[in-house]
Amino acid sequence: MTRTKAVNVRGTEIGSGQPIICIPLISQSVDQLVKECKQAVSKKPDMIEWRADFFSELANLESVIVAARMIRGEVGEIPLLFTIRSIHEGGQPVERSEEEIVNLINAICRTGYIDLVDYEIRNDQQRIEGVLATAKQAGVYVVLSYHNFEKTPESSILIDKLRQAEQLGADMAKIAVMPQSNADVLQLLQAAQTTQEELSIPLIAISMGGLGAITRVAGWMFGSAVTFAIGNEESAPGQIPIADLRAMITQLQNASN
Amino acid sequence: MTRTKAVNVRGTEIGSGQPIICIPLISQSVDQLVKECKQAVSKKPDMIEWRADFFSELANLESVIVAARMIRGEVGEIPLLFTIRSIHEGGQPVERSEEEIVNLINAICRTGYIDLVDYEIRNDQQRIEGVLATAKQAGVYVVLSYHNFEKTPESSILIDKLRQAEQLGADMAKIAVMPQSNADVLQLLQAAQTTQEELSIPLIAISMGGLGAITRVAGWMFGSAVTFAIGNEESAPGQIPIADLRAMITQLQNASN
Repeated sequence: MTRTKAVNVRGTEIGSGQPIICIPLISQSVDQLVKECKQAVSKKPDMIEWRADFFSELANLESVIVAARMIRGEVGEIPLLFTIRSIHEGGQPVERSEEEIVNLINAICRTGYIDLVDYEIRNDQQRIEGVLATAKQAGVYVVLSYHNFEKTPESSILIDKLRQAEQLGADMAKIAVMPQSNADVLQLLQAAQTTQEELSIPLIAISMGGLGAITRVAGWMFGSAVTFAIGNEESAPGQIPIADLRAMITQLQNASN
Repeated sequence: MTRTKAVNVRGTEIGSGQPIICIPLISQSVDQLVKECKQAVSKKPDMIEWRADFFSELANLESVIVAARMIRGEVGEIPLLFTIRSIHEGGQPVERSEEEIVNLINAICRTGYIDLVDYEIRNDQQRIEGVLATAKQAGVYVVLSYHNFEKTPESSILIDKLRQAEQLGADMAKIAVMPQSNADVLQLLQAAQTTQEELSIPLIAISMGGLGAITRVAGWMFGSAVTFAIGNEESAPGQIPIADLRAMITQLQNASN
């Protein structure tokens, strides 16, 4: 395994082999977000994701910027990932056009408050390229992502999504899919394992739900750089409370040495 | 998954989907064995394995029977697995011929002190059939096993070993192999997952060493019925202390619900 592809975000190495534990924030208001963020920070995550599709004032750019500033004030040097998950891929309903969302993402990138941004690979290539260009200029890393809450597509599709992210110029590639069987869970891990040897960027690979919980604990062994844990409340099915997750990862690492 | 194939040993269901945590005993003398066994029992394992290849008086049938009786006295209704691991498959050097070992196994089966016996599938078919016949008559379950401390053979070989165990008439099939990469770990889990749907007997599948530690924690998800944990001291590389292992399994099960 080459580990030269790690991304360094404010001193945190993502993709070095040491799993990054990320807590998502899912509050609706600025006040709640700040409170949720304080609690999250107290749990010492390696990364924080603001799932802005949960934010009730997403239509108001000023409010989004205020919230981003407040969150940055709380997280300090913890890498901050900004995500507007679409309803097509498990997010909250957001009454904004894709163009408005791209404008919002671009504006947030330029504030300097966020370190990484998630954008779905299902979007038009032109929009993806726009986000990539703006983010690059602003020094923000882009995670191109693919989610499937129904099923685990076949291996070749999983691998293609990861490759596609790299080809488009992403700094990180993410897939999160729903297993219907334990065999699906192995298929996801296998896709991660196969692809990590080939990609030059870190990848994130998650099998969701109860069946897939093992991938949140052990995905790092098979090339997944980031695992999402519950701070207060889960943002996707199968997430594990951060304290439990960290304890399990540490125990596995001890057992692996 | 059909779970009708579980084996019931003194009220303990092996192969029901709930992983059985087994502590091996590796002491050399009767006194040490009793002490080790008391400590093991206090840790509430689901099964205890007496690795009799570590026993210094293995050449003396009377001593072996005394030790078995003492161990049974300590374990109560905990299923007791009797194993003389050969040096070819990671065991201690034992100065006895295979014929003498079979005679010893048969004698121990007849005492009623043990519930299960491990025998290596590498042995002559005739000897395997002899052990199976004696064990069956004595009400002892037979685990036919294959170990490889060098590498993880290709999938078809792993699957063949498990199938072969069933074909020969085993009550349980076991493979424990050494990974040289994370890909090997997935290959072992994949072999277990594939085979469990086909076999009518419970299987045990372990990827050893640090790389394989995850299979000791999560193998049950992919069809492995038994996981071996450290009571006081490991009997094979990659084993995890029982308290840690149990905690991790419980957390994974909670996350899976």
